[in-house]
Amino acid sequence: MKINGTPYRSVWRDAHDPELVHIFDQTKLPWTLDILALRDEAQVAHAIRSMQVRGAPLIGAVAAYGLAFALQKDASDKGLTEAAAMLVETRPTAINLRWAIERMVAHLSPLSPDSRVAAAYAEADAICDEDVQVNESIGRHGLELFRTLWEKRRPGQERLNILTHCNAGWIATVDWGTALAPIYMAHDAGLPVHVWVDETRPRNQGALLTAWELGAHGVPHTLLADNAGGHLMQHGEVDLVIVGTDRVTRQGDVANKIGTYLKALAAQDNDVPFWVALPSSTIDWRVTDGVKEIPIEERSGEEVTYVHGLDEQGQAARLRVTPKGTKAANPAFDVTPARLVSGLLTERGRCDATAEGLATLFPDLAG
Amino acid sequence: MKINGTPYRSVWRDAHDPELVHIFDQTKLPWTLDILALRDEAQVAHAIRSMQVRGAPLIGAVAAYGLAFALQKDASDKGLTEAAAMLVETRPTAINLRWAIERMVAHLSPLSPDSRVAAAYAEADAICDEDVQVNESIGRHGLELFRTLWEKRRPGQERLNILTHCNAGWIATVDWGTALAPIYMAHDAGLPVHVWVDETRPRNQGALLTAWELGAHGVPHTLLADNAGGHLMQHGEVDLVIVGTDRVTRQGDVANKIGTYLKALAAQDNDVPFWVALPSSTIDWRVTDGVKEIPIEERSGEEVTYVHGLDEQGQAARLRVTPKGTKAANPAFDVTPARLVSGLLTERGRCDATAEGLATLFPDLAG
Repeated sequence: MKINGTPYRSVWRDAHDPELVHIFDQTKLPWTLDILALRDEAQVAHAIRSMQVRGAPLIGAVAAYGLAFALQKDASDKGLTEAAAMLVETRPTAINLRWAIERMVAHLSPLSPDSRVAAAYAEADAICDEDVQVNESIGRHGLELFRTLWEKRRPGQERLNILTHCNAGWIATVDWGTALAPIYMAHDAGLPVHVWVDETRPRNQGALLTAWELGAHGVPHTLLADNAGGHLMQHGEVDLVIVGTDRVTRQGDVANKIGTYLKALAAQDNDVPFWVALPSSTIDWRVTDGVKEIPIEERSGEEVTYVHGLDEQGQAARLRVTPKGTKAANPAFDVTPARLVSGLLTERGRCDATAEGLATLFPDLAG
Repeated sequence: MKINGTPYRSVWRDAHDPELVHIFDQTKLPWTLDILALRDEAQVAHAIRSMQVRGAPLIGAVAAYGLAFALQKDASDKGLTEAAAMLVETRPTAINLRWAIERMVAHLSPLSPDSRVAAAYAEADAICDEDVQVNESIGRHGLELFRTLWEKRRPGQERLNILTHCNAGWIATVDWGTALAPIYMAHDAGLPVHVWVDETRPRNQGALLTAWELGAHGVPHTLLADNAGGHLMQHGEVDLVIVGTDRVTRQGDVANKIGTYLKALAAQDNDVPFWVALPSSTIDWRVTDGVKEIPIEERSGEEVTYVHGLDEQGQAARLRVTPKGTKAANPAFDVTPARLVSGLLTERGRCDATAEGLATLFPDLAG
């Protein structure tokens, strides 16, 4: 997508030095467009852990380059296995990370060590290019869904109100985004979409990233405290909720940013469709019960007790928002049970959030 | 309750000048213990609108003194009526405000104008003293509820985990608080209570006021992003939710701080008891359907787009947390339908959140 008219992806290889990979430092957005250069696997691991790159699909793509970097030092079987293990451990909840690394390992293991580096870069490039295509497909299928909803609008209704939580936009992927892909397409197609943007505490990815992305593309949007969505749904102000996800189980349970579950409950209580957009790489076919089985990352309590933003002088700064010494808990994700999910929006189209729905759409993967 | 060992109420008349009323500036807490002196009704109206005083019971008490101030200038029927109307308009959702003003007007109207000022101060004092007694009763009844829960604890359970939203503590009332009254009593009685404190965006009354109150009294607590409560309930980490309220309808619908409804949905989905603590002055017997009938205050979007806290130098400051120009919506309250409320905790004991439950406990008021 474009930033001030210039098209970007959120990860790309350097034009002059192809063994250098660029990302935006997403901890600095939207205040500063800081482009980082990654050239070894330790930098990649740090970028993932510190959330300089975040968003399940993007984490997978950047980790794939991390493996290529590691192989430049040691392309042996042992080097491959160790680098893969190190990268998979950087964050626990998003499954695309494991998916990308396993895909890389499966592709590279049969090759002789001296051909692995070039093949690793090529496969990482392929993962990126496919992510863009997959998200574009998600967007097209989502646009159909939005059109159907718009055709059923109430008399006098002037806009299609979509609520989203966290950031599942183009900078959470290589391009397009997952949950935001159909929103961009609908806006471009002339559908009068308006987006309610959950600020998404504690890291405020909605207030910082989604509001920035939508603003840069010209999509009308309004920021909300995370607390407000239920009230808006009670009063008919939300036509559809759409979110991304970090992991979907084979029965359709959805791990996503903390607070997603609360919005799904409110959507069900008010008959508002609740959709989840995902590439099939986000499905963890080995896991069934998401609440019991998906590991939920516990991050630092300081993400809750300190808030980052721009001060009156326009400088990035942080404030403590609770008395000194107050401890905070900070689970980063929650799991929305499949029974609360109206449907899954994938690159192959829509399906029910059930084992049957997923198996029908992905017979080749459901196994 | 005590601050650093000194007992306080949250509103009191000056010891030397009884026509002066003191409050804490709650927009400065917990960073500064700034005590304001109020001496006319315009100051009272400003204090309520700007949330220097907040919390439904406290707003009512302070407004009562505001009426006494106004009568010092004009104690005629017209003066009484106009001052009452002005004060009732300061905030729309909390019903205790209207209750306190109507009680004052009913008491003062039959009196001759020259006896109204002294009577107004006396009646405002009575409202304050009764609020303290009422909250103490709420605390005692709540303590019984907590004891019952604690007796049914799981083997090995080490603490009773209570989740609360916003601030319904002693500084939201004249003393004791509503939702926090039983928590203080349980802690003092040796029950191992631990409180999950929702930060309560956008104004962060949980992070700022509830965390401060509980910390000052020594009650163990942990701060949470508002998004986290559902996840904790899914994993058995919450034994009970208790909140205050700004207005309860005759059928038991509960208006409270925005986001309360989402916690009630999660509590129901996980079989966690969801209780609401209130003085009977919070019941609006004229209203039945809370979602349809209770006016919800829409506050400035800047409460969402800017966050207040303490900077690295220990100075109170604010930061913008979203790109410049991002608009925000800010409904300040939501309504939790009675069907999601396990029970109401009042000064007369517990009852079901139903028309029958309330009428049985308050036959004299239900009319």
